Amino acid sequence: MSQLMNKSIVFVSRPVGLPSMDNFEFREAPVQAPAEGQVVVRSIYLSVDPYMRGRMSDAKSYVEPYRLNEVISGGIVGEIVESKSDQFKPGDKVIGMLGWQLYNVVDAKLVRKVDESIAPLSAYLSVLGLTGLTAYFGLLDIGQPKAGETVVVSGAAGAVGMLVGQIAKIKGARAVGIAGTDEKCAYLVNELGFDAAVNYKTADLDKALAEACPDGVDVYFDNVGGPVSDAVMNLLNDYARIPVCGAISSYNATDADVGPRVQAKIIKTRSLMKGFVLGDYASRQQEGLVELGKWLSEGKLKYEETIIEGFDHVIDAFLKLFEGANLGKMLVKVG
Amino acid sequence: MSQLMNKSIVFVSRPVGLPSMDNFEFREAPVQAPAEGQVVVRSIYLSVDPYMRGRMSDAKSYVEPYRLNEVISGGIVGEIVESKSDQFKPGDKVIGMLGWQLYNVVDAKLVRKVDESIAPLSAYLSVLGLTGLTAYFGLLDIGQPKAGETVVVSGAAGAVGMLVGQIAKIKGARAVGIAGTDEKCAYLVNELGFDAAVNYKTADLDKALAEACPDGVDVYFDNVGGPVSDAVMNLLNDYARIPVCGAISSYNATDADVGPRVQAKIIKTRSLMKGFVLGDYASRQQEGLVELGKWLSEGKLKYEETIIEGFDHVIDAFLKLFEGANLGKMLVKVG
Repeated sequence: MSQLMNKSIVFVSRPVGLPSMDNFEFREAPVQAPAEGQVVVRSIYLSVDPYMRGRMSDAKSYVEPYRLNEVISGGIVGEIVESKSDQFKPGDKVIGMLGWQLYNVVDAKLVRKVDESIAPLSAYLSVLGLTGLTAYFGLLDIGQPKAGETVVVSGAAGAVGMLVGQIAKIKGARAVGIAGTDEKCAYLVNELGFDAAVNYKTADLDKALAEACPDGVDVYFDNVGGPVSDAVMNLLNDYARIPVCGAISSYNATDADVGPRVQAKIIKTRSLMKGFVLGDYASRQQEGLVELGKWLSEGKLKYEETIIEGFDHVIDAFLKLFEGANLGKMLVKVG
Repeated sequence: MSQLMNKSIVFVSRPVGLPSMDNFEFREAPVQAPAEGQVVVRSIYLSVDPYMRGRMSDAKSYVEPYRLNEVISGGIVGEIVESKSDQFKPGDKVIGMLGWQLYNVVDAKLVRKVDESIAPLSAYLSVLGLTGLTAYFGLLDIGQPKAGETVVVSGAAGAVGMLVGQIAKIKGARAVGIAGTDEKCAYLVNELGFDAAVNYKTADLDKALAEACPDGVDVYFDNVGGPVSDAVMNLLNDYARIPVCGAISSYNATDADVGPRVQAKIIKTRSLMKGFVLGDYASRQQEGLVELGKWLSEGKLKYEETIIEGFDHVIDAFLKLFEGANLGKMLVKVG
């Protein structure tokens, strides 16, 4: 094994605005031999996610900033190629928060097995992983949609958004998606069963949303922030719930993120707005995975992936998230 | 009784921006004789409150807009001067949501007795009334301050704000007030026991708040919205709670109320922001009144009133709320 050459993506400077290739460096080095209790994991799928932009800043946040001159980390599914742990044998497929590199040599306790007979490997980075759980807990614990209510989700054609709308439907609510192309909107309605979808780039947003939500908005699952959220906030019903999951529209902003203040709207409607991260639900992950797995096996939940091929394109794939280039979960398949 | 002349304040046009005398008309007419089951209440104290500005607009809100050409209504403490109900006799002191007039002729069930031996009459419009309950439920149900946490309240020298800070202290938290004059700030610290107070009109707000809150902000009881709230939002700790009670800074705004968007801050800190009105706690009012009465009798809760004399000055008193002219509850004593 010691002849294996590794390739790693090292974080070398903090981006201002949209990250660029200059913020990263590809480095090569031999893969080190595992110590007792360690395993060598060959990367198969890498997850790229909007929250990673936050970790590239050194501002205080809910996750530690990435450190300069260290390998970027994220969710990875891979295969054990060498094991010095009795928990794993070569060929086992595992998932973990690992480094963006071809091989990770880590303590066995940092990865857990995934079962290809239940779902394809990539699903463990989307519907049966952090993505699915984020949609599940954000919508059901904070949003609490009731049958007949209207649930609006922004970033609806993204990995989390498309699950949010489908779970809303499972709960008997009306699902309205906001996305950035007509193709995405058509997909949401025709393939995933959303009741309506609005293209925020081409529509008169206030008008189109009002038409899509004739009974107002009871739950707004916010993935994007910015002007899209400003528009939804005008349609809130009394006691609306707003799980705030992401604000991708502002992540690369270098100017102040300024818009209509929400306070008066929140008072008038007695609405609740709550930020969350998946870690808040660590103790309930198993519950979420069981439910998601059940819905998946019953055919009630579809998921979509945009897969970019080749380790050399990890940064491209990450940057494409901010162009909205992905339908569903953005993944990189290591060549 | 039929010779009594009444004077009423009728709402004749909806204000744009700050209301003016032109939006109201004083009318005189004889007091009508009460029907069976009715009482005649002579007004003693009238409450003027910021939320009334909202009712003067016809926008959808949590309370019905005032109707044009009808008498404005609000909280009033008065004395029964004639009764056709066996529930009340002349001389009884009562409270109710009544019209801004010298006399109200209403069904007996619309008023309830208050006891002058427990607290002065005016207290039933402040600490032992809607004001006290608003502070109590907003802070304790949504804010949920824990011992050692930092509670910031804006509009701190207002009727609700000064109770919020004192209840925070009762619960063992650190109380920081934001108010608009040095006199108010000194009063909060020296008389009410706030740990710190910041004059938002003269201080470098970001700097002064950071100094007043060295451990960040766990609860922000928001009475004002606007730039003051923008500044507090920068200091939120993880899992902060923000009861949104009022946005007085925007009530008379004719321009859009624009400022830094809150979404990214809410996510980073996983904070909760929730609008509320007292009606949400209707079933728990008795609990609140008992607690407030206990703290009052134990000397743990002080309250303050700014009393304007004379029925003819009701509109003046209402408008002075928006200048921050009041310390504590703004009341009008009918001459």
